[in-house]
Amino acid sequence: MKSVTFHGIVAAKQTVYKYLDPTPLGYYPELSDKLGFQAYVKHENHLPTGSFKVRGGINFMHNLPKKLRKQGVVTATRGNHGQSIAYAAAELGVKATIVVPHGNNPEKNSAMRAYGAELIVHGADFDEARELCDTLQSERGLYYVHPGMEPALIHGVGTYSLEIFQSLPDVNTIIVPIGGGSGVCGAITVAKAINPNVNIIGVQAENAPAIYRSWKAGRHIETDSCSTIADGLATRVPFPVPFSIIKENIHDIVLLSEEEFQEGIRMAIRWTHNLAEGAGAASLAAGHKLSNRLAGQNVVMVMTGANIDKDTLQAVFVSLDLLNE
Amino acid sequence: MKSVTFHGIVAAKQTVYKYLDPTPLGYYPELSDKLGFQAYVKHENHLPTGSFKVRGGINFMHNLPKKLRKQGVVTATRGNHGQSIAYAAAELGVKATIVVPHGNNPEKNSAMRAYGAELIVHGADFDEARELCDTLQSERGLYYVHPGMEPALIHGVGTYSLEIFQSLPDVNTIIVPIGGGSGVCGAITVAKAINPNVNIIGVQAENAPAIYRSWKAGRHIETDSCSTIADGLATRVPFPVPFSIIKENIHDIVLLSEEEFQEGIRMAIRWTHNLAEGAGAASLAAGHKLSNRLAGQNVVMVMTGANIDKDTLQAVFVSLDLLNE
Repeated sequence: MKSVTFHGIVAAKQTVYKYLDPTPLGYYPELSDKLGFQAYVKHENHLPTGSFKVRGGINFMHNLPKKLRKQGVVTATRGNHGQSIAYAAAELGVKATIVVPHGNNPEKNSAMRAYGAELIVHGADFDEARELCDTLQSERGLYYVHPGMEPALIHGVGTYSLEIFQSLPDVNTIIVPIGGGSGVCGAITVAKAINPNVNIIGVQAENAPAIYRSWKAGRHIETDSCSTIADGLATRVPFPVPFSIIKENIHDIVLLSEEEFQEGIRMAIRWTHNLAEGAGAASLAAGHKLSNRLAGQNVVMVMTGANIDKDTLQAVFVSLDLLNE
Repeated sequence: MKSVTFHGIVAAKQTVYKYLDPTPLGYYPELSDKLGFQAYVKHENHLPTGSFKVRGGINFMHNLPKKLRKQGVVTATRGNHGQSIAYAAAELGVKATIVVPHGNNPEKNSAMRAYGAELIVHGADFDEARELCDTLQSERGLYYVHPGMEPALIHGVGTYSLEIFQSLPDVNTIIVPIGGGSGVCGAITVAKAINPNVNIIGVQAENAPAIYRSWKAGRHIETDSCSTIADGLATRVPFPVPFSIIKENIHDIVLLSEEEFQEGIRMAIRWTHNLAEGAGAASLAAGHKLSNRLAGQNVVMVMTGANIDKDTLQAVFVSLDLLNE
């Protein structure tokens, strides 16, 4: 397997910008006052499919050999990776089969179907859904797009980190949620090449801390469950490629409670007037949690995705005092 | 006074893109299925300040003679025009004084202050706030940026309509909310120059129908009140410059009830995962209302702004069955 390289990310620009535009890096004066640092938000939630993943899907699909494109692809997802693959497959005329676990975000499911993908519901969580891909790969002759092991995916999503350095050369810290890990690996790879003094801080859920625990222990650790409102971060099993990059290079990983994810969603609404899903709001909640440590810095919080479902959003509103400042 | 021209809009591009990036035109497959036409959303809510107005503010302030920039500017607003002027003034080192009516959206107020503007609360509604500008203009020697009578504002906001035609040359209908009327005048002017067959449909509030009534009657009509959840559309007095353009050229104006604005906000959340204020969601609600007439067309709905305040958003959630499909 090819490895993840800065060169791969730079090369992905050409492909990604054939299909997508760069996203804004918003500066928020009021949020900056509140948090005590210069608060920038990288709006990956503004992309088609509502998440950063589409950059990777486009880069992957565009570079997939024509023979494999004809066979079609299969992948597993909690939603944003799947939307990315479904979107890119539609753009390039490839048949996509996508496996999601039972109880998956219904809005992400219907969006994938709307892009023309075949949706299969299987297993209790992401990692169980993923196991079916092996079967479908051999039975149906589909190419299995492993969500964490394809360098082309990481290279594609890495382009947002290039944009961050281009928009804000004096960035001090970048905060990125970690699900599969492709986003944070892009940020690490770009920062190492452009300015190794930039801190990359990851965010995981207390309820889904597989990468956090593996990073702390320095070895692969799986968890038994991963139930979190931040469905994009709900993985039990670290992927070897991203984990090897994270293990050696991440500056810190913050764990958030379910309440903190909800607070992040409310922060996104109140201070940026953007709708963020749990994972997408995680960097804001983490910035809030670390505000003392980040005082005075230029901090980029990556809003990775918008795709919150209506029930989750309603729960954020109804179950708690709304948006207390 | 100089008039509004297509040339003025084309010339504004150079200025606007020094400070701002083009916004995405999102295509939404699921929303298209639901509405029965090809549903595109122009995401002006993704701009700095969260609204299309900033294009006009930038174009105006950049072209303001240096002598007038030194004097400082004054304007009146319900919020998005004021944020635009405050933002542009900060970018160009101009002192901005901004008058808002009592009970104005508190989040828009605090955002204007955060950009460094002096905020004055005066009058019961926008038109009363506006009257104070005359006084401040003479007493303080400030330049009065009339929100509806400066062609540079309309030329600046007109750039989004150029972007629409560039992204989607085959557009059939563009739906635009009408508050002061700058946005719709940009759309009318661009459509006339590029493709007069494109229908421009305006949206107003049943509770604030001054332009609608004036258009129907063919003469200037003011209303006594303008209380609507869509605060960006809450004007009682049509401005002569925009009205003269609208009167001769608009294809239709749709009136929405307060419930329909709320439904529009929910549509924006459910089908685009964007936070839209009442005015920003008006084009979606109007598209829904006119779906039979628009069947099969390429329809662009302009999401003009994101700046919904928390109480209004909560009311949308709590007071009604959420997001019933």
